[in-house]
Amino acid sequence: MRMKSISEDKVHVVGIDLGGTSVRVGLFASDCTLVDTVTFKTRVSDGPKAVVADMAESIRTLERRHNVAVHTIGIGSPGPLDLAAGKLLQLPNFPGWDNFPLRDELSRSTRCKVVLESDANVAALAEAVMGAGKTYNVDSLVMWTLGTGVGGGIVLDNKVWRGCNDMAGELGHLSVDADGLHCSCGGQGCIERYASATAIAQAGREWFQRNSAKVAGFDWETITTATMADLADQGNSGMLGIFADVGARLGFAISQIVNTLDVPLYVVGGGVANAWHLFAPSLLSTVEKYSYVYRLGKASNRRPIPMIVPAELGSGAGLLGASLIARAQ
Amino acid sequence: MRMKSISEDKVHVVGIDLGGTSVRVGLFASDCTLVDTVTFKTRVSDGPKAVVADMAESIRTLERRHNVAVHTIGIGSPGPLDLAAGKLLQLPNFPGWDNFPLRDELSRSTRCKVVLESDANVAALAEAVMGAGKTYNVDSLVMWTLGTGVGGGIVLDNKVWRGCNDMAGELGHLSVDADGLHCSCGGQGCIERYASATAIAQAGREWFQRNSAKVAGFDWETITTATMADLADQGNSGMLGIFADVGARLGFAISQIVNTLDVPLYVVGGGVANAWHLFAPSLLSTVEKYSYVYRLGKASNRRPIPMIVPAELGSGAGLLGASLIARAQ
Repeated sequence: MRMKSISEDKVHVVGIDLGGTSVRVGLFASDCTLVDTVTFKTRVSDGPKAVVADMAESIRTLERRHNVAVHTIGIGSPGPLDLAAGKLLQLPNFPGWDNFPLRDELSRSTRCKVVLESDANVAALAEAVMGAGKTYNVDSLVMWTLGTGVGGGIVLDNKVWRGCNDMAGELGHLSVDADGLHCSCGGQGCIERYASATAIAQAGREWFQRNSAKVAGFDWETITTATMADLADQGNSGMLGIFADVGARLGFAISQIVNTLDVPLYVVGGGVANAWHLFAPSLLSTVEKYSYVYRLGKASNRRPIPMIVPAELGSGAGLLGASLIARAQ
Repeated sequence: MRMKSISEDKVHVVGIDLGGTSVRVGLFASDCTLVDTVTFKTRVSDGPKAVVADMAESIRTLERRHNVAVHTIGIGSPGPLDLAAGKLLQLPNFPGWDNFPLRDELSRSTRCKVVLESDANVAALAEAVMGAGKTYNVDSLVMWTLGTGVGGGIVLDNKVWRGCNDMAGELGHLSVDADGLHCSCGGQGCIERYASATAIAQAGREWFQRNSAKVAGFDWETITTATMADLADQGNSGMLGIFADVGARLGFAISQIVNTLDVPLYVVGGGVANAWHLFAPSLLSTVEKYSYVYRLGKASNRRPIPMIVPAELGSGAGLLGASLIARAQ
């Protein structure tokens, strides 16, 4: 067995997962293992410079704890971003942060090289390199992250596909119904309005209201995807129907992407993916119905069959992906 | 001005455009100009070997006429194809040709290196390198070809994106309505059922039948996209409505791809694109309605605005694209 040299062990990078509620800062060793993390509340209203100071302090803490020097930081942030300029643009949940040059400010505070990337893209990259993409040994995948909203990331030949405006992979705003629900993006029928945790909880509340239903010990006003999944597992037909609809809607969106990109792997992550067993059957049958490419792939035993699977890395994908983009530079 | 050397002028490649009705064989000079073509009827029922013999004979004719030796041939064929094996799979309009090893058979008959690619992909590559992509100076584009069916091709960073099963870019089978018209592919609501020349002519015939309409000197039973466009240009409200619907449906499909890939250019080609002025207004307004990425691109003056334009190369795109893939090898 090859031993690691001390100098290799000193190659540490930091990944940062910037969220609207909390920030996670992770120290990674050269073999991509997570050594330690610091998590703190995002002081959104104190402004971006305060949060950059918190990030820098966390990195110093990690450096002291482990007696290492960090030279490169990767940071995954909600979008929209201007990646070339390293700036946040107008982030919906970060009032007052518009156009903040996060990359350069964090670089100045830490004297490190900083790489900025969208949170959905770093999660997709992490799944590609260390998660489902590694399991199935593929170079390309498309990932949906079903959380408060629905994010998307596209990895082609092991590289994030960013598009000409850094806006590729806005897969939460694929429309599954031209006459469907209106979305805050200005569009209509966006999959985010059907398959996000927010949309699913709303559908759950509406079902209880419509059916004047009561379930012993269950408070439907504070319903979440997780509590709805529990009820569905107990056989509640309303909840089962909602998850079947989530799968059908998401399957329709995925079928469009299978027909377009013909990559071998499609990954569904985010908190909602914990209910995978409840929405996967309708998702898969819908992709089969609407995707010519999926059907041809399945019909031929010479071809790779496109796979649609739940994410493997869970909530750690963002942090790991941020460290990977730092490493790639 | 730099003079071409004689040896450069001798670097000739052949592009072949294999269609269900006719085959076109083009001799191209080193600067990508078309020197000469031979066209012949596709003897589909005589089998693929007869057609390969016709292709080889045409190439010999071109070699003799211009006193050149051809070493490389690119051929654009309808799909589905197995590109790695150089084979046709089950082509709908070529009964009896299943699994024919076109690449190797043509190579044996001509002693040339042969490169096989799908017709929609070579057309997209031609537009990227010599057509709209050159005009707008972009490296990536997505192209729809509206003909008898609807084909698609994706060029990313100047390379055709083929997918893991050589089936990427099946953009005619994007579904624009989960409950829409049934398609011969087995799906439902495919854009091919609304925006192909076949579908448009059918919509035209149905309009005349529904409205028991007669237009002097116009035979609606032999209606085509071209004659319908003439009527629309004369103010026929039925035809104007049909083209507006084509634009809205195609715009919905394009909006999904803008949200997914965020490339700078989307090209609409094929015979139907001659009626661009009749369907472009509803197409563009529909993309604006359904694509978050398109709206953000338009709103910012720092970003490239995604452009949606008609193809520039017309029916020569296939032949030129076939010669380009030969050259790229």
